[in-house]
Formats: sequence, C-alpha cells, structure tokens
Amino acid sequence: MRGVILYAPGDVRVEDRVDPRIVEPTDAIIKITATCICGSDLWPYRGAEPVDHAPMGHEYVGVVTEIGAEVKTLVVGDFVVGSFWSSDNTCEICQSGYQSYCVHRTLMGTIGTQAEYARIPLADGTLVATPGQPDADLIPSLLAASDVLGTGWFAAVAAQAGPGKTVAVVGDGAVGLLGILAAKELGAERIIAMSRHADRQALARHFGATDIVEERGDAGVARIKELTGGLGAHSVIEAVGTQESMQQAMRSTRPGGHVGFVGVSHAVSIDGLELFGAGIHLHGGAAPVRQYLPEFIRLITERQIDPGAVFDLTLPLEDAAEGYRAMDERRATKVMLTP
Amino acid sequence: MRGVILYAPGDVRVEDRVDPRIVEPTDAIIKITATCICGSDLWPYRGAEPVDHAPMGHEYVGVVTEIGAEVKTLVVGDFVVGSFWSSDNTCEICQSGYQSYCVHRTLMGTIGTQAEYARIPLADGTLVATPGQPDADLIPSLLAASDVLGTGWFAAVAAQAGPGKTVAVVGDGAVGLLGILAAKELGAERIIAMSRHADRQALARHFGATDIVEERGDAGVARIKELTGGLGAHSVIEAVGTQESMQQAMRSTRPGGHVGFVGVSHAVSIDGLELFGAGIHLHGGAAPVRQYLPEFIRLITERQIDPGAVFDLTLPLEDAAEGYRAMDERRATKVMLTP
Repeated sequence: MRGVILYAPGDVRVEDRVDPRIVEPTDAIIKITATCICGSDLWPYRGAEPVDHAPMGHEYVGVVTEIGAEVKTLVVGDFVVGSFWSSDNTCEICQSGYQSYCVHRTLMGTIGTQAEYARIPLADGTLVATPGQPDADLIPSLLAASDVLGTGWFAAVAAQAGPGKTVAVVGDGAVGLLGILAAKELGAERIIAMSRHADRQALARHFGATDIVEERGDAGVARIKELTGGLGAHSVIEAVGTQESMQQAMRSTRPGGHVGFVGVSHAVSIDGLELFGAGIHLHGGAAPVRQYLPEFIRLITERQIDPGAVFDLTLPLEDAAEGYRAMDERRATKVMLTP
Repeated sequence: MRGVILYAPGDVRVEDRVDPRIVEPTDAIIKITATCICGSDLWPYRGAEPVDHAPMGHEYVGVVTEIGAEVKTLVVGDFVVGSFWSSDNTCEICQSGYQSYCVHRTLMGTIGTQAEYARIPLADGTLVATPGQPDADLIPSLLAASDVLGTGWFAAVAAQAGPGKTVAVVGDGAVGLLGILAAKELGAERIIAMSRHADRQALARHFGATDIVEERGDAGVARIKELTGGLGAHSVIEAVGTQESMQQAMRSTRPGGHVGFVGVSHAVSIDGLELFGAGIHLHGGAAPVRQYLPEFIRLITERQIDPGAVFDLTLPLEDAAEGYRAMDERRATKVMLTP
C-alpha cells in the first residue's frame, strides 16, 4: 500500500509500505476513506521533535476489511471512526472516561494512518461504526471526530464550558476552532476567540464565537479582563502548547475558573506559586475521544454540527508533501488526504 | 496591646503594639480568645521568605468588642470565627465560592492576629458568629476552622475526595492531617496517609486514615501505585509546597484523577509535558475558608468532628518564641497561643 513517511524534518514522502495484517486477535484492518494532517504533525515536520523515517498520521475514518478472531462488535464492511489512541474501553481508566490513558493503549501515530490501510489494535474498544454508510459530504466531519473535534471538545469539557459561562479560546487552529463549536454545543453564554486571521475569525464566528480578540500575550489577557468585568473568563481553552499560550490561558482565567489545555506542551513550565496565586483549575492532556464518538456520530449524521468545515484543503494522499507545506505556511487550517 | 513581631528569621518577639481601632465602617475589632502558629509562618521564620519586623498570625477566634457603623450581622459580644483572608462575601468571586480571591480581600497576615486584639476588615463578609458562647473545650477546634481545617477541607474538595474514592495525602502536618478528616467526612472509601512519624500516624488514623505509607519520593509513588492496582489514587492532597511533594502528588494520581494542592508553593515548577502526559486535574491555592465556616461551626458545636486535636502544644501568647521553636524543630505539630 501507499503511505506517508516523514524521512526527516521537512522531508515528507509517499511511498510503498507493507500492507498491514492482523497481529492480535483483537485487531481490525480498515481501508482508509480519509485521513488528515494534525497540528501536532508539524512539530516533527518543523524539527521541534526528533524524527527519522517515521510513518505519519493518527486520524482516520474507513471501512473494515478484516477482523481478528476475537473482534465481536464489528463486521467487515462497517464504516468506522476511531480515536488517535487505541483503547480496550473496559479497564478502570477507560470506564472512568479516560480512554486515551487506557492501560492497554497504543498511539495510532506509531502505526501511521496517512496511508491506504491501517491496523487498528483493540478494535472493539477503539472503533465505533456509523449507522450504515455515511453520505459522502459527511466524511470530513466524521474524520474531524477522530481527533480534532474530540480534542477541542475535551478542552471545552475540561474548561467546564457551559450555560452562563464566558469561554475564551487561545489558539485559532483547527482544535481551537472546534473548541468553540464544543463550547457552543455545551451551552456557553459567550465565546471569545483569540485570533488575528480574518479567515479563521470567520470560521470562529461560524462555529459560535461571539467576540474576537486580536491581542496576544499580556495585551490579550488585559483585553479578556476588560471584557469580563476585570475578573477573567470562567473557562479558557488552551489549544497551542507553548509557554506563551499557556500563560495567556492561565492569566485570562478568573479565580475558581477552569483552564482546559490540549496543545501538546512544548517547553512549557508552570510556576507553582503563580498557579497557587491564581486559584484556577487546570486539566488537560490527550483527549479521550473514544468517550465522545457515539455522540459525535449522532450529532454529525443528524447534521447538527459540521466540524468538517475546518478542512479548507483536500488533496490526494500522493500529494501529502504539499499538504504539510500548506499547513506549515498557514495557507491551510487543516488538510484532508484521500487515499 | 501585646502582639508577636518577627524581627528577622528566627527572631520572634512579643511586644507592645498599638491597639487596633475601627478604620473603615465595615470593620470590627475582636478580642482574640485563641490564635496559633501556621506552617506557613515557618517560611519567613526559617528565612525561606524575606521578613523584617512583621506582625505575625492570621488564624483567630475571639469576641467582638466594637463594630463599624456599617456592620449589620454582628453585635458586640458575639463569639466569632474568621478566615485568614477577609472577604466581602458578595462579589462575583465570593458568590462562586472563592472568598479567598474576593476582589476586596485583605490577607489577615498583614494585620497579625498573634495579638490580644485585631481589626477585621469587611467584618460582615469575613466573620461568622457561633450560636452563643462556645464551651471552652471547643475553642481549639473552632480556631482550627479559621485556616488549617478549612485548608485541609479545600484540598480534599479540590482533590474530589468522596464515596468510592481512594485518597492519598502527601504531608503529615496539621493541614495534611485535617485533609484526612475532610476526606473521611466527604465519604472517601480509603485514605492513605504518607507519614513516617509515629505520633502523626496515630493522629492520621484517629482522623480516618486507613493506610499508612512511610516511603517518600519515587518509592512513595511506587507504594501508592502498588496499593491501587497500578493505577494511582483517584484523589491526592498535596499539603507541603515543595517540588518533591508536588511531583509525588502528581505522580501518585491516576489519569483523570485530581490533585488538590494547598501547600504554599516554594520554588515549584510543573513541567507542561509531564502534566499533559499525566491527564490529571490540578486545583489549589488559598482555601476559601469562609465558604465552609457555617458548616464547620455546626459540625464542631455538634461535636461531630474534633479538628482541634491537631494542637499538641498550648502556650501563653508571651511564650510565642518557644512555640515557633517547637514547630520548627517538629516537637509540636501545631501550637495554640492564648493571649
């Protein structure tokens, strides 16, 4: 099969890879209908994380082509959405709603779903089948559910976005934008998007943002305080992962408020005394996407949400290198790849 | 009046201070019945925080001797308990339950309650009167409610201690010990005290600890994991405030679990990637004691809890220097001072 390999920073190639096969009886093989490039794929692409001939990709939707002997909930032909972490969905951690920290988890990025096929470990616990084959125009939204919607949603839940709350969103990438969608769905009263790009501001408003703040850093914090009676937002979503964005998020939150952070932290250090003085809640990490998939599939197939709107460039898998370039240069918010 | 002044690290003196008087119409003056030395008073005493001729003390119970023209809920003669932060109890932050972050707060430590009298700002919002004059044997428990019980309680709430939960407590000082009491009252199933001192272990068990772990650092984390099926505790109370104790708390918590931290952080730095990888909740800071005072007064006057058991040394105010020495040398867990 064909698949994306990141040879080295900046060097994306699509080449022949060995077809995946069932290894464990709990595995399934899926033919990938659509996959995409994640903001987190840009870290190694930009040399901010070490990389050496790595298969890429951890977001996917597709059709089951083969199942292991112990797979019970899926049949060949099912259209499925899965999380970027595989999970058994039965251990104590999964049952508490943290499937991304399952005691038997595998990071799908190590498998590489920017490819024609993929082996999905713990298929019963990881994949959720849609009711029948979805309409073609729903594919982008279902693909978004695999990570970027789930991650934005988790951030909004972690930030306790809800009725009566003012939510600020740091980061106008796909995750931040879908954090806005999630905050809206969760009933937030006011949603402040922090963005200085006109196209992303427009998408933020499409998903439910009520206010736009263009300032960043201390000026951004001051503006949020100004908009919230000097107190700060109740709920702040951090969807970048840098020291500046984390500080901006923490300092934009009122005492007793909640920061939900999902940007993969790079060289972030939180000062204990500042956190003590802030009196805020901090929660985040790898989103337990699996928890939300049944609800996402319902909302998407009933056309109540359209998270697929974050994809502003679709390319054949063979053109993956151009997709990486477009995201790196911020010419695209989120790139879908079709094998 | 007489009051404690910390001239410099290690140099505690009791000397004449100016009698407090009403400054704002919302003030009250109280005659202090009992006050005490806080673990946090040891930071400047040990030279870990700068100090220069500072009045000391922020815990207190006493009798109202004078009220300002705008004080409405108190009368002269009331026996009152107050928090270590004054608060109006009406602002949006107070109303959300975070009175220790009130927009009009004053830190009582700047006033210094290790004295015969104290001026209490925002008396209506800060003080809660007991139903009548309390029995003398209840004074230590009511004094504990002023800070150390409230702080341990907030830590347990922040750690979401409750039914079905395993709670681990890092720190066997008075706050940690009362965190155990709080976890028990909140219905925790299992409470693991981390302590290597026989007398504190005994008090931990008295307050409700079901297990004792003597190991610290990595070994302590390993022991907590061993006791929790490899997963870590659901809820961890951090009641020390050092880098080691914070790491021990974070690493003892299962994914999705909660750390409640109340040790005033000193040179603590939290690595963003470690926090991301842990998937835990982190909440703490200055405890909103005021929120809990009515319930504390009820529990104490109905003799359902006895937080005053943490006081193992009572001295006249004049002997405050010996009280500081006893706590510094760990000869006493918590010292009560009676003016």
